Amino acid sequence: MRNKVFFIAALMAGVAAQPLSAKEGMFTPDQLPEIAADLKATGLEIDPETLADLTGFPMGAVVSLGGCSASFVSPQGLVVTNHHCARGSVQYNSTAENNYLENGFLAKTMGEELPAAPGSRIYVTTELTDVTARMRAGLDSMEPNARYDAIEQRMKDIVAECEEEAGYRCRVSSFYGGDQYKLVKQLEIRDVRLAYAPADSIGKYGGDVDNWMWPRHTGDFSFYRAYVAPDGSPADYSEENVPYKPEHVLKVSAGGLEEGDFVMAAGYPGSTQRYARLAEVENTFDWNYPTYVTLINEWIDTIEQTAPDGSDARVKYEATLAGLNNYEKNLRGQIEGARRVGLVDRRREREQELDAWIAADPTRANYGKAIAQLDALTEEQAAATRSSFWYGFATRSQLLGVAERLYRLSIERQKPDAERKPGYQERDMGFFKQGMQALDRRFDPSVDKAVWMLFLNKYLDQPKDERVAVLDNALGLTSGIDMDAVSSKLAGYYDATSLDEAATRMALMDASPEDFRSSTDPFIKLAVALYDYNDQLETEAEARAGRELVLRPGYMDAIVDWQRSQGKVTYPDANSTLRVTYGTVMGGSPQDGLIYTPFTTLEGITAKDTGEAPFNAPEKELQEISDKDYGRYELDSIGSVPVNFLTDLDSTGGNSGSATLNSRAELVGLLFDGTFESVNSDWDFDPRTTRTIHVDTRYMLWVMDKVDGADNLIAEMDIVD
Amino acid sequence: MRNKVFFIAALMAGVAAQPLSAKEGMFTPDQLPEIAADLKATGLEIDPETLADLTGFPMGAVVSLGGCSASFVSPQGLVVTNHHCARGSVQYNSTAENNYLENGFLAKTMGEELPAAPGSRIYVTTELTDVTARMRAGLDSMEPNARYDAIEQRMKDIVAECEEEAGYRCRVSSFYGGDQYKLVKQLEIRDVRLAYAPADSIGKYGGDVDNWMWPRHTGDFSFYRAYVAPDGSPADYSEENVPYKPEHVLKVSAGGLEEGDFVMAAGYPGSTQRYARLAEVENTFDWNYPTYVTLINEWIDTIEQTAPDGSDARVKYEATLAGLNNYEKNLRGQIEGARRVGLVDRRREREQELDAWIAADPTRANYGKAIAQLDALTEEQAAATRSSFWYGFATRSQLLGVAERLYRLSIERQKPDAERKPGYQERDMGFFKQGMQALDRRFDPSVDKAVWMLFLNKYLDQPKDERVAVLDNALGLTSGIDMDAVSSKLAGYYDATSLDEAATRMALMDASPEDFRSSTDPFIKLAVALYDYNDQLETEAEARAGRELVLRPGYMDAIVDWQRSQGKVTYPDANSTLRVTYGTVMGGSPQDGLIYTPFTTLEGITAKDTGEAPFNAPEKELQEISDKDYGRYELDSIGSVPVNFLTDLDSTGGNSGSATLNSRAELVGLLFDGTFESVNSDWDFDPRTTRTIHVDTRYMLWVMDKVDGADNLIAEMDIVD
Repeated sequence: MRNKVFFIAALMAGVAAQPLSAKEGMFTPDQLPEIAADLKATGLEIDPETLADLTGFPMGAVVSLGGCSASFVSPQGLVVTNHHCARGSVQYNSTAENNYLENGFLAKTMGEELPAAPGSRIYVTTELTDVTARMRAGLDSMEPNARYDAIEQRMKDIVAECEEEAGYRCRVSSFYGGDQYKLVKQLEIRDVRLAYAPADSIGKYGGDVDNWMWPRHTGDFSFYRAYVAPDGSPADYSEENVPYKPEHVLKVSAGGLEEGDFVMAAGYPGSTQRYARLAEVENTFDWNYPTYVTLINEWIDTIEQTAPDGSDARVKYEATLAGLNNYEKNLRGQIEGARRVGLVDRRREREQELDAWIAADPTRANYGKAIAQLDALTEEQAAATRSSFWYGFATRSQLLGVAERLYRLSIERQKPDAERKPGYQERDMGFFKQGMQALDRRFDPSVDKAVWMLFLNKYLDQPKDERVAVLDNALGLTSGIDMDAVSSKLAGYYDATSLDEAATRMALMDASPEDFRSSTDPFIKLAVALYDYNDQLETEAEARAGRELVLRPGYMDAIVDWQRSQGKVTYPDANSTLRVTYGTVMGGSPQDGLIYTPFTTLEGITAKDTGEAPFNAPEKELQEISDKDYGRYELDSIGSVPVNFLTDLDSTGGNSGSATLNSRAELVGLLFDGTFESVNSDWDFDPRTTRTIHVDTRYMLWVMDKVDGADNLIAEMDIVD
Repeated sequence: MRNKVFFIAALMAGVAAQPLSAKEGMFTPDQLPEIAADLKATGLEIDPETLADLTGFPMGAVVSLGGCSASFVSPQGLVVTNHHCARGSVQYNSTAENNYLENGFLAKTMGEELPAAPGSRIYVTTELTDVTARMRAGLDSMEPNARYDAIEQRMKDIVAECEEEAGYRCRVSSFYGGDQYKLVKQLEIRDVRLAYAPADSIGKYGGDVDNWMWPRHTGDFSFYRAYVAPDGSPADYSEENVPYKPEHVLKVSAGGLEEGDFVMAAGYPGSTQRYARLAEVENTFDWNYPTYVTLINEWIDTIEQTAPDGSDARVKYEATLAGLNNYEKNLRGQIEGARRVGLVDRRREREQELDAWIAADPTRANYGKAIAQLDALTEEQAAATRSSFWYGFATRSQLLGVAERLYRLSIERQKPDAERKPGYQERDMGFFKQGMQALDRRFDPSVDKAVWMLFLNKYLDQPKDERVAVLDNALGLTSGIDMDAVSSKLAGYYDATSLDEAATRMALMDASPEDFRSSTDPFIKLAVALYDYNDQLETEAEARAGRELVLRPGYMDAIVDWQRSQGKVTYPDANSTLRVTYGTVMGGSPQDGLIYTPFTTLEGITAKDTGEAPFNAPEKELQEISDKDYGRYELDSIGSVPVNFLTDLDSTGGNSGSATLNSRAELVGLLFDGTFESVNSDWDFDPRTTRTIHVDTRYMLWVMDKVDGADNLIAEMDIVD
């Protein structure tokens, strides 16, 4: 008989009574000693100073995969990250006979480990050097384009010097909009192997339906292993390579967290716009994002109609469609979030408060000047973005893009390597070539043409003065145009080109500009025709960027100074460098009438399970849940094994796979997503609604222990309670 | 500056600590004295005995609108119901100049009140008489078809006798599947006028997006007024009519409820299947509902493609589309809910427990026999449903349906009125004629033909033995059929028919069977051709129903006896008669990781508001919210005016507009929906997830007071704290 008594009280038992603060901030490790008092007050048990040491514990264990974050969890180079960060490698190794996406993959010995997808890297940050003085010397007196070029050249020079040491990848990162520059030096491990990934039915449980959603039940974890040459240096894949021995590894917690506990995450957040000026915010949310949402929906429709379900073409565009759908959902969430929190009004108020603070003291007058000039520039940039928006799409055929990049390469290659544009230097050629090869797997001429026609139609809907003569002439886009004629013309392009052949593209990587100018390939001819106009757009954009290089630091100085006067430490916008965010395990109220509890349970998987993807947990898992075989992984207050949990941490794209650490810097989870109500936090951190989603190490270990039998990996890790 | 401190504790402050029971049961008023002890224990303050008196307080104030519930709230015949129950009348009175849907409607004096939509009725139940003995006399010894006919004839006879008193509408309702029969006598008020309806932007706030959803912020209330002839008898609309003086009216609470408070609702729930046998449950959830969902989606697509957005045809099918979308969402919710609660397993267990109880005592052997026979019959019924399913759709052209009903009418009219089939008697002709007239507003030949083609295609996909020769022959559905030829043939039907003209349909209401048999109208010819087959299907179905008329009461007797042995009172399935359900104001946990709080707030409207329908609250309302002008309507524990609230009451379709009453039987809300997780409760009440949604009288009064200025109506009601 069913139990008719339902205890709200029991549900609420886990709810802490103390007030909990949402902690905004993606701090650079060197800032942490500055906020040591608050870290301690929030619950950090280890010395905050230790967090500032990139090569010490625990930061030495935190790595980047380039786009995702990860961490070392065994002295044998075992790396844990999100399933969605390693899924490309699972897919790469899957065949019809061995479908690892469907069945999961577990190497029971190191010998069984599989090479990760080509291009997979593990980056270990070894040094962070302030290069501000060298980067900014004499900038103020330069003209904008010269200033832009100087910054670009200095970055390349510093990187080249740094990369003279073999096995390292270097980058100069700008902080506070060009106020500070730091050289990031990373050991680049090139032999990356897949050790273990659960099946999609665990690792991608909930799929796109649950993406950005709470409640969540995703086992978003996988394991790589880093390999190096026997001498310890990074090397390409070789059977002789040996596991990399990291200096520091994280202990993995089987005891985990309780609601209200201190938590922090270390990882590589990609980018945020927390200090964007009002004009940019308005342009983005009033025009850019809504325009994009409409366009992306038409773009998706066009692909789906041209490449019907089940067609070969559809297979090639699945990743594109997934990306577009994901982006569309993100943009809608951002627009919705901006509306909900009143982003524009809040930004306006903040700027008024800053203005008032500047006006209150004549010594702050220079801040005011910089801000006024920055605002004028921001308006210019917004106008430029709008006026070139549709031209940008009208030239966004995949093959035209290939032609443009190859022609550009031929021109750049005329220069000494050090003077070439970033992306066209020798150090970039590996990725460049990979991109040129990969096209075959994600290109179909009928889809590319249909999408191009969509974009051209949109372009033609714009006022005359936003049209570009060279494009109009090349494609015959005259007034009173016949779109059928344009369509026929484009069809001729696809018939006549050989850029759809990988061999052609490879050969053209070595061609001269003259080869391109005399080519009869219609896409190449169009790329050559558009070159000067694109170059002019780039020069204009660089001139604006050059002006920004001195104005934005002035504005950021004002922000830092102002916030310091309020007792606050200003963190820089995310820029794919290592950051630490801290806070508390907590649920939240995303909407009036609704509460998120901080943990989900194993039983929630069974409740969601329909037997059909993405809600098709393995039979064995459902059986273990039904048997209540929780092992040592149970959280008493919820009476089950916690699957995912919520925190108020400040995170964004790139944070995926970040080590989620407890007060003793033990691994308690992996950060893998934010709630839908949080996607707008890139622009404005709302402490009421921003929540980050983590997979709990108790669930990870329970799956490894009870479902997948990954005992060999469990044995290798230092599991603590 | 934004407040960085977020108190979960504050959020939880309203959460009661005591266990709360979900009370299953839609009790008939006469059952309430039997459960008086539990009503008292749950919090009822008035004497439970009073609730059993249909003509006393408060039940005398509760009325039916036919499909919706409502109640009297002033001595001047003012009736409050849901906005969605009165919206047809708002629409009926709206013009391009006076768009009451958009602007709302308020009669500041009775003279300004507008006639409700044609056919609007207010039914006041005045008497409930047990007619079981007369209905069931001698049934057991009859053959199934004779038994079915006897029940039908006795019902008609009893109704005819009852309706000899002018101004009344009568109905014989079956309880416990034919175990009991009651004559329901209702005063039928025919002059119904619209007094007040808020704008759609309040009354339909959230629209289809929020339909069945929590959190909810819908002002789903409107006011009618009942009018009668000066002598107090029901009469058609006339300027001389006067407001009806109800014997009892409800007081309206401005004080409202708090979480955990006792609450009950009185209304007319439509139908439930709480006692359906396993075979029916399986057939429904494994086959019928999933098949329907697929079909409805194709049906919707067909209408949308044939009647594009903005076309005249689309306008005619908007209501059909809304209904189909609503039904599809409901079915999906039911399928999902059945899976989640394990409906099939639970039903199987219940039947096993009942079997065990029967087996435990030889005197219960007759129960076992009835159940075995009922199960065999249920299997037969399921098989019959499946085999005629696609034939049913293949003859579901709107015009064919019209032809079939008109031809049937001509045949029924050959008989004395008392012997005609229900639906074809003189008392039904008003509704019949209205239906024939209304077709023009919801019919387009191209859409009807496209939908018919869809159904025919589905029919042709079925195995040969489910095909019907007379249909196949009439439409030339031979093997190796050319669907283009069928399409051309159907096109000829629509070209040649005149049934799309209202005048033709009206004239045919008086035609003879011979007129139909000699007609050249292709739809009429098809209807005549199919008549005998349809008649045979009906006779077979009635034979099964005739058998059920004795078997199901035997089964229900077993249930009642069994539940009594457990100390439980068995309530009958809903059958559109007056019922009372009681319980508690409570939130819930619809899913692992998620909690519904019991109240939503005014501020939630602002948070949801996008300025675009269905989230476009009136400017004045948003301003009042922003001003925190709560007046006397604030609930302290939530710091705002409560908009909607949740309870664990047991409700279903037809309950819409039900008076939600507090422990003193004062009106505290109007029941208007259930949560998505509850739609499956028609089959199985799950106390963990079933929640009913009400609009709070505090919100209703606040809108009337602060937004719409309906002071005249407030003055007319007895408002209590």
